Amino acid sequence: MPELRKDPVTGRWVIISTDRQKRPNDFRFERASIIGREQCPFCPGHESFTPREVFAYRQNGTAPNTPGWDVRVVPNKFPALQVEGTLDREGEGMFDRMNGIGAHEVIIETPVHDRTLAAMSEPEIERVLWAYRERILDLKQDRRLRYILVFKNHGAAAGATLEHTHSQLIALPIVPDVVREEIDGARRHFSLKDRCVFCDIVRQDLVDMRRVVIENADATALAPYAPRFAFETWLLPKRHGARFEEAPRHEYESVARLLKSVLQRMDRALESPAYNLILHTAPFSDDVGDLFHWHIEVLPKLTRVAGFEWGTGFYINPTAPEEATRVLKGVKL
Amino acid sequence: MPELRKDPVTGRWVIISTDRQKRPNDFRFERASIIGREQCPFCPGHESFTPREVFAYRQNGTAPNTPGWDVRVVPNKFPALQVEGTLDREGEGMFDRMNGIGAHEVIIETPVHDRTLAAMSEPEIERVLWAYRERILDLKQDRRLRYILVFKNHGAAAGATLEHTHSQLIALPIVPDVVREEIDGARRHFSLKDRCVFCDIVRQDLVDMRRVVIENADATALAPYAPRFAFETWLLPKRHGARFEEAPRHEYESVARLLKSVLQRMDRALESPAYNLILHTAPFSDDVGDLFHWHIEVLPKLTRVAGFEWGTGFYINPTAPEEATRVLKGVKL
Repeated sequence: MPELRKDPVTGRWVIISTDRQKRPNDFRFERASIIGREQCPFCPGHESFTPREVFAYRQNGTAPNTPGWDVRVVPNKFPALQVEGTLDREGEGMFDRMNGIGAHEVIIETPVHDRTLAAMSEPEIERVLWAYRERILDLKQDRRLRYILVFKNHGAAAGATLEHTHSQLIALPIVPDVVREEIDGARRHFSLKDRCVFCDIVRQDLVDMRRVVIENADATALAPYAPRFAFETWLLPKRHGARFEEAPRHEYESVARLLKSVLQRMDRALESPAYNLILHTAPFSDDVGDLFHWHIEVLPKLTRVAGFEWGTGFYINPTAPEEATRVLKGVKL
Repeated sequence: MPELRKDPVTGRWVIISTDRQKRPNDFRFERASIIGREQCPFCPGHESFTPREVFAYRQNGTAPNTPGWDVRVVPNKFPALQVEGTLDREGEGMFDRMNGIGAHEVIIETPVHDRTLAAMSEPEIERVLWAYRERILDLKQDRRLRYILVFKNHGAAAGATLEHTHSQLIALPIVPDVVREEIDGARRHFSLKDRCVFCDIVRQDLVDMRRVVIENADATALAPYAPRFAFETWLLPKRHGARFEEAPRHEYESVARLLKSVLQRMDRALESPAYNLILHTAPFSDDVGDLFHWHIEVLPKLTRVAGFEWGTGFYINPTAPEEATRVLKGVKL
């Protein structure tokens, strides 16, 4: 059974995923093994390679776990957390732990093995966002869960181990540190100003424009003022809204359009970089409707100087966001 | 001039190191270029390849910037921060920035090109710790500075770009996020219990023993209860003390002995893994003498699934710390 443990100093929770337990020997030769399309568990016809699907957009008349799907969601075959069981919370002296209850799912974004998210059409990308929404709405009915982390690793340098384009979702009985920090910061701002900090950022940047890569009626793609990574780009809806899964229909369409444009610009300007995409949305139960603002962060992984930042939490970024914006804006699509 | 910028949501500071500014093209072909010993800027005889030394342990009668040194400290040739200038703090609307004032130095740990820290003798490792101390004591006289981050990247997977063993030091006019978080957590614990949280951890673990890798009279090497990384190991002095640079002489000797043993055990058990080593010590001016406890964290980089953790700040660790401890304790040295 996996376990969630809390660091007694920082309050940071980590998953000790003992079901994926590695012996020392296992670490020695680990490398990203790129699996060809014959063996790809995400290709149509290979539905039996994965656990049974929990959701799919399918062509009419096709049966679950057979070809005919456009987006397919399945439990991760090597899950970091387990759905079954009760959420036992307990102390071990000064330490705190709980059972690793939760869900770990894979969103297969397209049946086409070698199509990237950037290369998919805008309606196809929008459909992926809708799949995120469907899974969040379903999983948040489970009262044991407090947060759903939706993310995508693209490219080996970003941690992807399978080539066929996919996102992942981890549903958690705790709120992860990075979200807690954001909410604490947003709460500080709100208590000072009675305004959402993200709304203020969007408003100021849409006047300044030096960090706005592109915008449309509903959403803005901008380089944050203090980016951790070179060419880090955030996509924010212009309308205030704390929860991704409660966004109005037209926002998904607008965000999908921006996302395609941003990813294509990165592909052209930076020669198809590895990246992580992370959906930031409010925890299920917290009363943060006024102060949090859902958004998507795209974090290219361009440099190899990862160790320092990773270990210290302190980031050195060689590219000013104004320069990154200039480069991405300048790309001819 | 590099710049420090504060994220308006999380309060996290990042360095925008414009002097290292990369054009998009620069990212395309970046890779760790291992420089052979003929070109190694850290080898004796090549002292002119680096900026002029700021500190060295030298054999009697040898001149600065010539061979004859045992440990040599030089400014980083490509510094993330600059020593010259005034610390202008300013706002840009809702955003906060300051000049990137600070120091970025390299501690060359040995003149021998291919000797690792683990392979150095205990007195040689102790001398490296003393060099850290000397540089901290010198730099903290600069009233513009608030924190010194001492760290080591060993191996390409940990971000090292030069093979010749070395540590780095970044002196900052701000307290980085990771230290701020630790201090906030330690303060919460102290306000509840009137005790140092690290002292409590050491005390509980020395009774429990399931996470104690090794100990000696002055110090303990233990696996933290909620480690982010497989085989993560912390070295803590048993005596309470907030500041590394104020530790009594015998603690450096004891910590050096433990550090050698831990690194050797990792080398044997995990086939010489890449790792980051990070010194956690109190900020210069903060009144945290009672509540903070200096320590060294060794973070092996064993898995490649870095992207998710890096992007989300949420960690999945496949090895329980009790299992990691069992493995490291079991190594025959």
